Amino acid sequence: MGAVEELLKEYEKVWAIGYSLALMGWDSETYMPEGSARERGEASAALVALKQSILTSEKFLDLVERAEEEASDDVERGIVRVLRRALKYYTRIPVELLREEERVTNEAKIAWRKAKKRADFGTFRPYLERIVEIKREEAEHLGYENHPYDALLDLYEEGFTVKDADRLFSGLKPLTKELERILSSGWPQEHPLEETPYDAVRMRELNERILDILGFEREYQRLDTSAHPFTEGIGLYDVRITTWYHGKDFRRSLLATVHEFGHSLYERGCDPSLWKTPVCGGVSLGVHESQSRFWENYIARSRAFSSLVAPLVREYLNLDASPDDIFTYFNLVRPSTIRVEADEVTYNFHIMLRYELEKGLIEGSIEVKELPQAWNEKMEEYLGITPPNDAEGVLQDIHWSLGAMGYFPTYSIGTVLAVQIGRKMEEDLDLPSLVSEGKFSPIREWLREKIHRWGSVYPPKELVRRALGEDLDPKAFVDYVKVKYR
Amino acid sequence: MGAVEELLKEYEKVWAIGYSLALMGWDSETYMPEGSARERGEASAALVALKQSILTSEKFLDLVERAEEEASDDVERGIVRVLRRALKYYTRIPVELLREEERVTNEAKIAWRKAKKRADFGTFRPYLERIVEIKREEAEHLGYENHPYDALLDLYEEGFTVKDADRLFSGLKPLTKELERILSSGWPQEHPLEETPYDAVRMRELNERILDILGFEREYQRLDTSAHPFTEGIGLYDVRITTWYHGKDFRRSLLATVHEFGHSLYERGCDPSLWKTPVCGGVSLGVHESQSRFWENYIARSRAFSSLVAPLVREYLNLDASPDDIFTYFNLVRPSTIRVEADEVTYNFHIMLRYELEKGLIEGSIEVKELPQAWNEKMEEYLGITPPNDAEGVLQDIHWSLGAMGYFPTYSIGTVLAVQIGRKMEEDLDLPSLVSEGKFSPIREWLREKIHRWGSVYPPKELVRRALGEDLDPKAFVDYVKVKYR
Repeated sequence: MGAVEELLKEYEKVWAIGYSLALMGWDSETYMPEGSARERGEASAALVALKQSILTSEKFLDLVERAEEEASDDVERGIVRVLRRALKYYTRIPVELLREEERVTNEAKIAWRKAKKRADFGTFRPYLERIVEIKREEAEHLGYENHPYDALLDLYEEGFTVKDADRLFSGLKPLTKELERILSSGWPQEHPLEETPYDAVRMRELNERILDILGFEREYQRLDTSAHPFTEGIGLYDVRITTWYHGKDFRRSLLATVHEFGHSLYERGCDPSLWKTPVCGGVSLGVHESQSRFWENYIARSRAFSSLVAPLVREYLNLDASPDDIFTYFNLVRPSTIRVEADEVTYNFHIMLRYELEKGLIEGSIEVKELPQAWNEKMEEYLGITPPNDAEGVLQDIHWSLGAMGYFPTYSIGTVLAVQIGRKMEEDLDLPSLVSEGKFSPIREWLREKIHRWGSVYPPKELVRRALGEDLDPKAFVDYVKVKYR
Repeated sequence: MGAVEELLKEYEKVWAIGYSLALMGWDSETYMPEGSARERGEASAALVALKQSILTSEKFLDLVERAEEEASDDVERGIVRVLRRALKYYTRIPVELLREEERVTNEAKIAWRKAKKRADFGTFRPYLERIVEIKREEAEHLGYENHPYDALLDLYEEGFTVKDADRLFSGLKPLTKELERILSSGWPQEHPLEETPYDAVRMRELNERILDILGFEREYQRLDTSAHPFTEGIGLYDVRITTWYHGKDFRRSLLATVHEFGHSLYERGCDPSLWKTPVCGGVSLGVHESQSRFWENYIARSRAFSSLVAPLVREYLNLDASPDDIFTYFNLVRPSTIRVEADEVTYNFHIMLRYELEKGLIEGSIEVKELPQAWNEKMEEYLGITPPNDAEGVLQDIHWSLGAMGYFPTYSIGTVLAVQIGRKMEEDLDLPSLVSEGKFSPIREWLREKIHRWGSVYPPKELVRRALGEDLDPKAFVDYVKVKYR
């Protein structure tokens, strides 16, 4: 048996543990009885530790070493690359620091919830201060070339640096002017459907119907309900999504469903020959988000999709909305203090703000205590509004309480990349007619062929270059906004 | 750290793997997309292998050895005893034989399904022959004192032997006379409610309502639907049950729900101090079945329960049935060829027959090819009926195709023990009034105190003696039938 083969055989244990952890993750947000959260936490923690101990065992490290020498094609090199990344995390960061992070974030999550409820940043501040310290230490252990924040970005988006992020966000700055133009042009900011109630059972049936049209594979996929929509790729042959129901404003439920469909298609699209290997699955959060955003923004927020969906909205929700109504309703532009409610045009400003603050925290140019004010000032600068309190400002996202710093930029990577993918796809496919006729198979095939099937064989930048023949380009997004919102 | 403590720490990995396997088991019968069965199988197999490798590692074996010397109380001795039993299985049976069994049973399951569909024993016969050979080999590896079947019985019911089983079933033989008497006395054999349709949604609500009354803990438990009802103790704080819905004959759904409630109560009742140890959980299949049968037979098939449930049947199913109607309907006595449809009186004959055949197969006094005829002859002898074909005869149960031989007798152990428990409980509690008033907390407490909290600390025979002050006693069951069906 060659070293790569032997490595993959040993890796099967890690795969199986990951599989079970994914199922546990899905279950804990859908069907798990509430009272068993603590026990679930203990079981997960034990399995995570077991996985780590296999990955960092001498046997495994040796196999990676030998496989690296033997790797003779892109897939084998990809396998070694992905494992090296995982090992870097476990071997460079001292285990005490990881434990400390787990301890602190467990408490921080609770403190954050409390702080958000009371709109009191002070309750969360000491925890966040400790988290920032830990993250800075981790960055030092992980190592970086130019900026400590690079080390953290790389955890979520391989090879993505402060230099890249600065280029991305400065390229998005012209959206300020576009936003001004759109707002002053009389583009709709509100729509009665935002307040129109719906029947949750029928809404669920509508979501299921739309998923069927998009090409959801019932044999390997399912839709459930959870507090926040998510996708869980339990295995290549078991990819589940969830959505939410608020009883009004059906767009939120429908677009979340389509968004998660995009994630799930990526998880399902990996070439079966990569099954159970470390390269089966999305390559980065940014590329993953590009898939969900492509379906949510480029497809579901298009005029063609509005005409496809209008009769279904009538059939299922008994709402008399024309395709134009739906297009307008899906594409309102209204600066808001809340990221998750932001439209396409304002969304990236929310991310820009978070990126600048995170970078400042990690490089030490901003202190945690200055965050609320800095947040509000940037909000005013980018969107012209000031959050009424910290709950709707600096406390709105859970991410920092979980220790996720370097994560936010991937949302903008995905949002921009989604548009580039759409533009590229339109060179090969007549999207408006395919979408309005509900013919999504050529679109799925295009994505599978160019992106999905490769799993994590290539690092994200290389994958994008191979798929699109270009790099991440914020200008494409600005142009898209210019044309669409005219 | 003492050896026991160290052992338990190491055992946490095994516990966590078992936890995840249980969740996977539950999920695969409830929500898993159908197409992912093969992947699920691979993940389970990898986790089972990982669990085995931890249990049989030198480190673990050494810890068990040291813990055995140090064990200083019943719980610690119980922990060592239970682990020794698990290790016996993994260390005495050659791994090649276990693999062979897995391979054969995987194919046998499919062959059995096909054979049952066609009512053709020949299709299944070669597989069953191989399974019997494997089981006989396993028995030799496991070792036994008097009879090779003892080794197999012990896997499901610790310490239970052919001698015990012979005593049990010969003690149940007087039921033949009772059955004759009951049938000739005009005791009802049929009831119109068997054919009365119900609305599945309302039936589910009725089940949930009954579970609430019985004391189902929503915080740690849930009810779902599956092809066959089962209980999955994922962890001490996460015990899930399922039931089924056929659209008519509501008794089947209701009694299955109550049956599984009994299993789940046992799983939930283990003393929290035993959490995550090898002794947390039911001690044997027989004792487990005694808990489900107690609730199903002793409680739900009682006159008191009929009067409790009659108004609910009216409220939820819109059926106008008096308590007497329901009591009759729940206690029809009608010899049937199908075990899972059998009533209290005829049930044990189904088990007796299987026990005698299994014992014969293992000791070599019966050959597989003789099974269909032997089955039908015993059916005629015990119940006076002959299956119309092998699908309703020798092919009706899945157990043998899974390699489960020595399992069936635990059903009778549970059925008999349930009555002994009920009798004993009536010395302390006024069951009829508690049940008719829906006051189940003293009943739950009694079971918890006497049986549940001990988990597997004591072997089943000792547990029964401690709880009831007596041994398994078929006469108690015969007497119960004599009185109830008069």
